[in-house]
Amino acid sequence: MIMKHKGILIVVSGFSGAGKGTLMKQMVRSYENYALSISMTTRDPRPGEAEGREYFFVSKEVFEDRISKDGLVEYASYCGNYYGTPREYVERQLERGKDVILEIEIQGALKVKNKFPTAVLMFVMPPSAAELKRRLEGRGTESQEVIDRRLKRACEEAEGIEQYDYIVINDELEECVKEMHSLIQAAHYAPLRNKEFIEKMKNELRALQKETAIK
Amino acid sequence: MIMKHKGILIVVSGFSGAGKGTLMKQMVRSYENYALSISMTTRDPRPGEAEGREYFFVSKEVFEDRISKDGLVEYASYCGNYYGTPREYVERQLERGKDVILEIEIQGALKVKNKFPTAVLMFVMPPSAAELKRRLEGRGTESQEVIDRRLKRACEEAEGIEQYDYIVINDELEECVKEMHSLIQAAHYAPLRNKEFIEKMKNELRALQKETAIK
Repeated sequence: MIMKHKGILIVVSGFSGAGKGTLMKQMVRSYENYALSISMTTRDPRPGEAEGREYFFVSKEVFEDRISKDGLVEYASYCGNYYGTPREYVERQLERGKDVILEIEIQGALKVKNKFPTAVLMFVMPPSAAELKRRLEGRGTESQEVIDRRLKRACEEAEGIEQYDYIVINDELEECVKEMHSLIQAAHYAPLRNKEFIEKMKNELRALQKETAIK
Repeated sequence: MIMKHKGILIVVSGFSGAGKGTLMKQMVRSYENYALSISMTTRDPRPGEAEGREYFFVSKEVFEDRISKDGLVEYASYCGNYYGTPREYVERQLERGKDVILEIEIQGALKVKNKFPTAVLMFVMPPSAAELKRRLEGRGTESQEVIDRRLKRACEEAEGIEQYDYIVINDELEECVKEMHSLIQAAHYAPLRNKEFIEKMKNELRALQKETAIK
């Protein structure tokens, strides 16, 4: 029986080259219930990037105003620019019952878990490190230096995997999308996401008991 | 990508009348990967019960010998008789990669969680308290007193639901079996059940990094 309640906040992290971007797009395409959160940044748009699609591009002043008003779920500063998740969009979608996906790196992910203990954290991995290297090299667009830096970063990120709720191995796209979907569905069955139903059941049981005692 | 590792210990509890017994039988019938643990008891077999099917029926001496040798996953004494879960069968099936289902009440369930922190605890509920009452009465085999006692017990058990990992609502049998199956499948994706894979990935990444550094 499907239980209806507020949406779930889903955080997806993973090594650069694990295929997170493609996965997320496919998730939203395959299932109706997901909303993809779009980050806000102070960096300049790159060629081909569109406002409100890849990012919301704002000035430093606007971003810092958001921070001061607690208007971000999480934010971080990276290479002199801010990146963050606008709170309003996330909360509105959750209220509508949508499961909202945030694609953020590990530090941000743990901050979100702190603020929203019911968030589900997923870590996307390639089937092997060799495959990760192949994918990074296969893009053909990155210098050896960038590839090396990403491998180093993967090494560091791997240390935090145990703090995630689930790991998913992105071997075959469609299969991985199905797996992620059923992991998220599973999260809807946790008692902490069904407090209302449980309370209702407890009250009904107590009422029945009283009824019986009176007879 | 399916990850292969040791089986998962699954504990199923729920109100009397929630339909646990039928659910468990259907789980084992519908999917290959489950083994149903059979409890050991010192009470006498009832008509129609068979040794090794409903229970392993043993003497008090045999049972206490098991206790003293730590041969039980959990045990409890109820109405002057012992009930417990033999450890050997459970561990052998887990080693073989089978997911082992224990159907036990809430105190036993929490003991198992203490001993096996990776166990998955599921609580089966009827869609409503009224439906629970209907089912208890519908059996037609129980006295009003027994029904009242079961409702009272349900009231007490409801207080512990939050300690379970998942709640499942048994409205339609086949649907509920499918849901339980996918909840158990989800558990296979937790990092703590994939330590070997994660360690392997970390080692591979470190090796790749060294290789790159030498070049």
